[in-house]
Amino acid sequence: MSAVVYEGNRTLNVVPGLEFPPGPGEVRLEVAYCGICGTDMHIYHGNMDARVTRPLTIGHEASATVAELGEGVENVTVGDCVAVRPLKFGELHAFDKGHAHVGKNLKFIGIDAPGGMQASWTVPAYTLHRLPEGVSLEHGALAEPAAVACHDVRLGRVAPGENVVVIGGGPIGILIALVARERGVRVIVSEINEKRVRKIESLGLEAINPLESNLAESVSEKTDGAMADAVFEVSGVQPGVDAMTSLANVRGRIIVVGIHPEPRQIDLFRFFWSELELIGARLYEEEDFEKALSLMGEGKLPLDELITEVYPIDKVQSAFDTIESAPEGIKYLIKCDGV
Amino acid sequence: MSAVVYEGNRTLNVVPGLEFPPGPGEVRLEVAYCGICGTDMHIYHGNMDARVTRPLTIGHEASATVAELGEGVENVTVGDCVAVRPLKFGELHAFDKGHAHVGKNLKFIGIDAPGGMQASWTVPAYTLHRLPEGVSLEHGALAEPAAVACHDVRLGRVAPGENVVVIGGGPIGILIALVARERGVRVIVSEINEKRVRKIESLGLEAINPLESNLAESVSEKTDGAMADAVFEVSGVQPGVDAMTSLANVRGRIIVVGIHPEPRQIDLFRFFWSELELIGARLYEEEDFEKALSLMGEGKLPLDELITEVYPIDKVQSAFDTIESAPEGIKYLIKCDGV
Repeated sequence: MSAVVYEGNRTLNVVPGLEFPPGPGEVRLEVAYCGICGTDMHIYHGNMDARVTRPLTIGHEASATVAELGEGVENVTVGDCVAVRPLKFGELHAFDKGHAHVGKNLKFIGIDAPGGMQASWTVPAYTLHRLPEGVSLEHGALAEPAAVACHDVRLGRVAPGENVVVIGGGPIGILIALVARERGVRVIVSEINEKRVRKIESLGLEAINPLESNLAESVSEKTDGAMADAVFEVSGVQPGVDAMTSLANVRGRIIVVGIHPEPRQIDLFRFFWSELELIGARLYEEEDFEKALSLMGEGKLPLDELITEVYPIDKVQSAFDTIESAPEGIKYLIKCDGV
Repeated sequence: MSAVVYEGNRTLNVVPGLEFPPGPGEVRLEVAYCGICGTDMHIYHGNMDARVTRPLTIGHEASATVAELGEGVENVTVGDCVAVRPLKFGELHAFDKGHAHVGKNLKFIGIDAPGGMQASWTVPAYTLHRLPEGVSLEHGALAEPAAVACHDVRLGRVAPGENVVVIGGGPIGILIALVARERGVRVIVSEINEKRVRKIESLGLEAINPLESNLAESVSEKTDGAMADAVFEVSGVQPGVDAMTSLANVRGRIIVVGIHPEPRQIDLFRFFWSELELIGARLYEEEDFEKALSLMGEGKLPLDELITEVYPIDKVQSAFDTIESAPEGIKYLIKCDGV
């Protein structure tokens, strides 16, 4: 029974995990799989040291089986296979306008509280979503990133028949493209890594490498000059920000998904001229998790194609090293002892 | 019968105007008043020389009486008092998604075609809106900027009970504040010119001078930490852009009204963190003109307070000189021979 803890300074240790009996409204899980997210890499790199209390059990993309119920828990039963929506809500603030997932008192489990990369994990019952029939625990670990994609596509108000461009074809970018495609739109993904470009094409999506051809011209050609109704900025870098305003048509929506720690130069004139809209998107709400699980249950997301490799928990360091050295991978999972 | 033409190099000439008989679908107007807009100042400064064909009859904030009808015109009759929505629509492009006012083939009358600062002016009949009873021709010249404000407030989805901050208390900023107030919101205007601050307060609006006190702290105090649901960026400068992200609460809308010719540094992290939205707004649509005229007809906009001075057409140069030297003025009108 192990747990992965971040100690600081690019150090992950696999330590004996602890088992906490669930309090009222809580559930103890046996964790099956936990995906590695870009945020885990940021923690690993020390970029979030000011926020995290060390040692921190990392991980927030987990699937699990329910092992033990605390007092008053009714939404799940022992033995259920679940995905975890890793948000712990505090009291709402006037500033929050009822949006707990972006509220001032939100705690993100896996950053601000112990995460899921451990065998035994105790969480609030309200964080749990039962996996639909036919969705494996391995696939269940992708519910969290798929919920991010569902949230982004929903906030982007993507409608049938539209042209959509996704800038950045990593795990979230690809999931956004796949979820958007289910809304009946044409999707083009911009990605600079050639191996990822081929992966994207193998999923039946159109891809453009903006280092190989002019992105705006290519989108214009592919759309007969109509350009994009919705642009998802998932790259997190200035060239992605430069591209996003050049791709949107009149009243186009630009959904900023990538995290930009530094202020970016943005062409506000384009926002004025074509009445563009920029929408910041963060995390997900309950309905996004339900949507993601429903798409997964219907077999609409080719999840096997997105899982690059599964590592046992004691090889977590190798998994992080691989991600560092192989930017073409998509999703890496840690198999926790709780399987 | 005179016309004001821009010749280039900060030169305006008052020349004999021409009278064009209206073609089919056109109307010949006798212009009463024409306001001077920031855009006219930009033309005067030579900033738009690449776009305008000189000599250009400037002006696009005009009120007029209908003098002559072209074939097939039915929406107005001779003698009607009207305001002009100075947009000439071309064929719609796939890119335009049906939004002619931001379409690729839009021509703005007064920039791309002869404007209203002349006694006799021939325009398409569909540009005309009849002034409601009780609205004078002098007030009618403010229909265009008031329609801008109505458009901005509409695109900003301002709803009763919200907190609204307007950054920049010039003519458009003040009109936005007044139109927003009519939606039952609390409005705070940020303005650096002390004389304008006093003018804003004299209109019963709250004002903050961000050079005198910390804007974000002041807004937080005034709203008990709730901050702004909608922020209108009307300043057109980087400090306004810096302020806008600091004032918005969760899911806040930031409406960019000011024209930013250069890319701006924008804190995208705030857009992500609080799921902010940025909405570019340009010009107006038919319903915005109707809304503006209806507010004017109901006496909801204190227009007399906004008109700083009226100049006869032959004194147009003095009017421009005054605007250059007195940044505290609000709206200056030119009285055209057609009154």
